[in-house]
Amino acid sequence: MSAPLLGHLDPEFLELMEEVKVLLRATFRTENRLTLPLSATGSAGMEAVLVNLLEPGDAAFLCVNGVFGTRMAEVARRAGAEVKTIEVPWGEVVDPERARSALESAYPDPARQPRILGVVHAETSTGARQPLEGLSALAHERGALFVVDAVTSLAGCPVEVDAWGIDACYSGTQKCLSCPPGLAPVTFSEAAIKRVRSREHPVQSWYLDVGLLDEYWGASRVYHHTAPISMIYALHEALRIVHEEGLEARWARHRLHHLALAAGLEGMGLTMPVAQEHRLPMLNSVAVPDGTDEASVRGTLLLRHGIEIGAGLGPLKGKIWRIGLMGESSTPANILLVLMALGEALASRRVGAALAAAERELAAA
Amino acid sequence: MSAPLLGHLDPEFLELMEEVKVLLRATFRTENRLTLPLSATGSAGMEAVLVNLLEPGDAAFLCVNGVFGTRMAEVARRAGAEVKTIEVPWGEVVDPERARSALESAYPDPARQPRILGVVHAETSTGARQPLEGLSALAHERGALFVVDAVTSLAGCPVEVDAWGIDACYSGTQKCLSCPPGLAPVTFSEAAIKRVRSREHPVQSWYLDVGLLDEYWGASRVYHHTAPISMIYALHEALRIVHEEGLEARWARHRLHHLALAAGLEGMGLTMPVAQEHRLPMLNSVAVPDGTDEASVRGTLLLRHGIEIGAGLGPLKGKIWRIGLMGESSTPANILLVLMALGEALASRRVGAALAAAERELAAA
Repeated sequence: MSAPLLGHLDPEFLELMEEVKVLLRATFRTENRLTLPLSATGSAGMEAVLVNLLEPGDAAFLCVNGVFGTRMAEVARRAGAEVKTIEVPWGEVVDPERARSALESAYPDPARQPRILGVVHAETSTGARQPLEGLSALAHERGALFVVDAVTSLAGCPVEVDAWGIDACYSGTQKCLSCPPGLAPVTFSEAAIKRVRSREHPVQSWYLDVGLLDEYWGASRVYHHTAPISMIYALHEALRIVHEEGLEARWARHRLHHLALAAGLEGMGLTMPVAQEHRLPMLNSVAVPDGTDEASVRGTLLLRHGIEIGAGLGPLKGKIWRIGLMGESSTPANILLVLMALGEALASRRVGAALAAAERELAAA
Repeated sequence: MSAPLLGHLDPEFLELMEEVKVLLRATFRTENRLTLPLSATGSAGMEAVLVNLLEPGDAAFLCVNGVFGTRMAEVARRAGAEVKTIEVPWGEVVDPERARSALESAYPDPARQPRILGVVHAETSTGARQPLEGLSALAHERGALFVVDAVTSLAGCPVEVDAWGIDACYSGTQKCLSCPPGLAPVTFSEAAIKRVRSREHPVQSWYLDVGLLDEYWGASRVYHHTAPISMIYALHEALRIVHEEGLEARWARHRLHHLALAAGLEGMGLTMPVAQEHRLPMLNSVAVPDGTDEASVRGTLLLRHGIEIGAGLGPLKGKIWRIGLMGESSTPANILLVLMALGEALASRRVGAALAAAERELAAA
C-alpha cells in the first residue's frame, strides 16, 4: 500500500485491474465476467447486489438468522422491494425444506414469485455456516436469482459460485482475504446481468451501478469514479498470497485450526453453541459460562494479550464470545495464545470468586 | 498505510477517528459536528449528500457547467428528485443574478421551492472556480439548502463552509489533500441534519445514511460497517501534513504556483480558456493549439517524462489539456518540468511539420 500511486487510467494500473479480476474469479470459483471489487467496504457489496437486482415493488425472499440477514432485509426494503423472510433462531441455519414451505405460503401466486432469494453464507454474528445448494435449487425452481453474502466465508471455506448456482455474491477484504478493509469483491452471473440490463428504472445508486462500473472495469475503460488505487494494490497482493498458498490448502488450514480450537475449548469445559456440522471455521462462537462477566474477560484479553474477541450481538448479547481465526491470523500459535489467555482469565475469576466465597463463609462462621 | 491494523472499535482507533474529525472541521472551516470521512471515494460523497437531503419528489435546483454538475443532476434524479438546472457553457461559471432569474422562472409557486441548490466549486473537467457567496444567499432566500462539491478545491483554495453558509459539502482525498483515493470527507450543517431527521422516507442508501454513520462516528459508537482502517490512517496523516503547512499557506502556495504556470504557458504562446478571475489554481486548463494532435502530446509527456495531464471532456474533448497542480505536486520543479516537456513536445511537432512542408515544396519544385 505504500507503493507510489498510479493514475486510475494509467496503462500499468489497468493491467493490475485485469489481474485482480482474474484472481477474484479464481477465489469465487467462477467464470463470471462481471467480477470486480467495489470501491467501498463489504456492506456496500450487499447494497450493490440488492440495489442492482431489485426494483421498486419487486418481491425479495430473504433468510434471516443473524445480524447480516437482518441487514439484508433492511437494505432490500430501502431499495423499494417488498421483503418477506424466513426467520430461524440465531445460531441455527435455514433448512431448505422449511424455506420451501415458507416460500410457497409467502408467494402462492405463480405469477408473483420473488426476484431474489438471499442468504448469508457465514453469519458472523453467530458463527453458523449456511449450506447453500438446497437453497440455490429452491431459488432457481422459482425463477429467483440466488444471492449470497460471503463476506466472512470467502477464502476461508468453500465458496463455489458456479458449482452452487450463485447468481450474485459479495464479500469484504478484511476477513479471510487478510487485506485491510475497504473494498467489496462482487460477482454477477449472466442471469444477474440480464436482470440488471432489463430493469425498468435506473439503479438508485449511481456509485454502485454495476452497469457503469462494468464500463470502467471492462474493455471500454470509461471513467466512472477514481478507483482507490492503494486499496487495489493491497487486494492484488492479498489475492496473490491466497493463491500462493492455494485456495483448497487455505480452506483446509482454516478447518484444521478450527477443529484444534474447538478441541481446546472443549478440553477447558467450554461449549460451542452452534451445532457441530454447521460451525464456521473462521468464526468460532463460544458460550459464556454462567455467572461470568463476559465484557471483563474480553477487556482482559485485549489489555493483557492484545487479543480482540467479539461480543455477542442481538439475542446473543452477553451469551457468547466470537473468536475469529481468519486468513493469516488462523495459526496454531494464535490458537494456543487465545486458549491460554481465556483459560487464565476464567480461572483467575473462578479463583477470585472461590476466595471471596470462602471469606464470606469464614466471616459468617 | 503500512501501520498494523487496529480493530474498528478499538479504543486507539476511536481516538484517531476523533482527531480526524477535528482536522477535517479545520480543513472545511466549519464547526459542524457532523463532519466525517465516508468509506468510499469522492463520488460517493456526492451521492451521500444528495440521497440524505433529497426524498422522492423533492425539487432540486442544480448548476451545470461541466462533468460534475451533470453528474450531480444524474445522481439527484436517481434519488427520485425532480431536477431543474441552470446550464452555462463549460469553462464558464454561474452568475448568481442569472441563477436567480432561472430559479424564479423554474419555481414560480412560493409553496413549491427547491429543497437544495447545488453547485460544483471546482469543476475539474473545465478548470473553472465557481464563486459561492451569491449562490449561497440565493439558496437561503428560497429556503433551500446550499450544497457544494469541493472535491478538487478543498485544501487547495479557500473553502469556507461556515462563512459562506454551505449546508452540505463533500470532497475527496486524492486531490489537494494529497492522500490516496478512497474516502469522501463530508460535512453537514445543523439545518442539513434537521432536514435528514425530518425525512418521511428512510434514506435510500443504508451504506451512506448519515444518521447511521453519525452513530458510529459520534459518541454512541454503534457498529455500522467496518471502517477502512488503513485509509483512515492515511487521511489522518495527510490532514496533519496540511495543517503542518497551514491551510492559508497551502492556499497561497497553490495560487502562487498557478500564477507561475500561467505565466509560463503564456510565455510559450499558449492560452488558458477560463477567464482569469475564475481560474482554479489546482486545475489549469490550456487550449490545444490549432492543428495539434493533443493525444499524442499527452502520450509523449507520459512516456518520456512520467507526467500525466488530463484530456478535455464532453464539449471540450480535443480542445483543452488539464494540468493538475494539487497538494504535494504543486511545486516549482513540477511547473518547470511540465512547461519544458510541453514546449519540447509542441516544438518537435512544429519542427517536424515545417520540415515535411519544406520537403513537399522541394519535391514540387
